[in-house]
Formats: sequence, C-alpha cells, structure tokens
Amino acid sequence: MNYYSGRMGELIEQLATLPGIGTKTAQRLAFYIVSMPVDKVEKLSKTLVETRKNVRYCSECQTLTDSEKCPICSNPKRDHSTIMVVETTRDLAAYERTGKYNGVYHVLHGAISPMLGVGPDDIRLKELMRRLQGDVKEVIIATNSTLEGETTAMYISKLIKPTGIKTTRIANGVPVGGDLENIDEVTLLRALEGRTEL
Amino acid sequence: MNYYSGRMGELIEQLATLPGIGTKTAQRLAFYIVSMPVDKVEKLSKTLVETRKNVRYCSECQTLTDSEKCPICSNPKRDHSTIMVVETTRDLAAYERTGKYNGVYHVLHGAISPMLGVGPDDIRLKELMRRLQGDVKEVIIATNSTLEGETTAMYISKLIKPTGIKTTRIANGVPVGGDLENIDEVTLLRALEGRTEL
Repeated sequence: MNYYSGRMGELIEQLATLPGIGTKTAQRLAFYIVSMPVDKVEKLSKTLVETRKNVRYCSECQTLTDSEKCPICSNPKRDHSTIMVVETTRDLAAYERTGKYNGVYHVLHGAISPMLGVGPDDIRLKELMRRLQGDVKEVIIATNSTLEGETTAMYISKLIKPTGIKTTRIANGVPVGGDLENIDEVTLLRALEGRTEL
Repeated sequence: MNYYSGRMGELIEQLATLPGIGTKTAQRLAFYIVSMPVDKVEKLSKTLVETRKNVRYCSECQTLTDSEKCPICSNPKRDHSTIMVVETTRDLAAYERTGKYNGVYHVLHGAISPMLGVGPDDIRLKELMRRLQGDVKEVIIATNSTLEGETTAMYISKLIKPTGIKTTRIANGVPVGGDLENIDEVTLLRALEGRTEL
C-alpha cells in the first residue's frame, strides 16, 4: 500500500490514522510538510505534544482549557446563574460565535446512548449536579437534536426537576435560510408546534 | 475567529495552515489529538520533525528518499536503461502501484509553466540530461496530460532528440471503466487517433 520509502512512508501512515484523513490527504500533507520551513515543522510538532500534555478540563464547566478555570468561567462579567449544557466543546464554541450568550456553559463530553453503551455516569453529569448547589437560576439544555441528545436532555430535566431550578431546551425549527422543501417532516412539525406570534 | 482558549486555539490555528485543512477539520483533528494517548502524539510529533529534517532527493532520480539513493534506483533488478519521467513523487507512486513497470524514474518536481513563471531551469531537467550520458535506451515521458505537462513533454523530447535516445509519451485515451458519454471531446479524439488493432 505504501510506495514511499522510509520516513515519508511512516509519516503518511501516521497522518492517515487521524480522523477524516485518508491516504491521499495524508500524502498531500506529508509532501507539504517536507516542503515547509524546518522551524515551522518544529513549532507544529511542539504544539502537538504541549497541547496534548497541558490541556485539561475546566474545574467548573469541564471544557478544555489551559488553566484551572476556563476564561469563560473566570470572567466575572458572565452571568454565572445561567448554565447552558452542551455535548462538546465544539458546541460551546458554536454558541460563543453567536456573541449573544452571556451565561456560562457545562460541557458533558458526550450524550447518553444506550446503543453505544454510554450511560449517565459516562458523561459529566455529576459535575453539573454539583454546580446546581450554587446560585443557579436557569439551566438551558442545548444538547444536539439527535436521539442521543434528546435522551440526554430528558434525563437531565428529570434530574433537575426536584431542585426546582428552571430548565429549558433550545428550540427546534427551520434553520435560517433553510428551504422548506428540503427540510424533513419532523423538523417542519416541530417548527409548526413552536410557532410564535408576530 | 477562535473560541478555544490558549493551546487548543494555537494547535487549531497551526493545523489550519496545512493545505486542505479548514478550520472545522483543524478543530476535529485538535480534539482528536488531545484524546490520543500521549505516546502516540509524541511519536507523530517526532516523525514530523525527523521526516522534514532527513528526507532528501535521490541522487539519481530526484525522488524523496531517506538515503543517498532511493530503493528503486539502488535495486539491481530494475531496468536502469528505461527512464520514466514524471512530474511528482506521487506520480511515481501511482505507476509503482500498477506493479508492472520495471524501469526506473526521473522526478522533475514540477512542470514548465510560463503562466506560473516556471521555466526549464526550475525543474530537475539538468539532472535528467546528465543521466542520459549513461546507458539509456528509452525515455518514457509520463508528465500529466495538462497544458503544463504537454509543454514539458514537448520540451524534453526536443532536448533529447540530438542524443538519438528513443523517447516515448504515455497514451491518451478513455480511462478504463470510463463512460464515453462523460468524456471530453479532446480525449475522445485522442483515443480514436491512438486506436490499436484487435
């Protein structure tokens, strides 16, 4: 399978183990890397190891961060009484990009999935429940709109109910710019159910 | 642009400078990397730098290799009197995959392109001409079937003509499994011109 000799072959092989990187992309990357200035390659190489070794979970919201607390959790200007629960740090980043959410987050690092054998103990739920002992007014559940995400949302809302804290779920509906024609029936129905007065 | 703190942000940024890796892919890769075992990341990091530092050009065919001569050029079983001229090491790998070519190669590392300002001196032509002083029976020009590839092929064939060495060009035609309906007119015409008796 490998027609490149020695080190090139090894580099291609290792790059191809990364997700979404096939042999062709790995080849292209390897050829690019051998044409890069040595110091750039050294910098990338160092960043890889340093990131892997130093990134940890925020003690509050469990997102990936360099320090004890992430910049969001340590920002006094954010509303710490509103917690948005997301599945991944990428989902957190997606909401941060909107620039309109001023609360804090809680990253579950997964979703409950009986199919994949992921139970409530495998995601960061205990950490969320611990946070709810503080001064929390609302928990916004922003897990994905998938079977796993919905299951997780249901589970969390039942868990929170006894505490009396307000629990909400982000809305389902037609994506902005979405063409009704191309949208599945379930989404269309949810959009109808969730209609708001103009 | 970057909603990840510190090292994660830096890693994503650096990965995104690689060709074909956009911000989304860079994010996915970065998250994968922080979930990888530390020793695997260290190995990848080491391979990156070592490959960059140690890969060099074969003194004969100019392909990328770890040693003075590449495994193909140092293989006495290969026919050293037949040289296939290709644009890149990837093209060499493509022909090696066929498993049917027993000659050696010459990698130009580019093609003549007046548009991009790439002249005959910018590709490894001098090295090819030097090799022709040895015992060479045939030069097969296997540059791409693009404007640049064809220009380069014409240029090389004119350069070789005075030496009297047989110079051939790989055939144009319908790709195997190709549907005539979807093939451009020029290719169809070339396939017709190059027809062989059954």
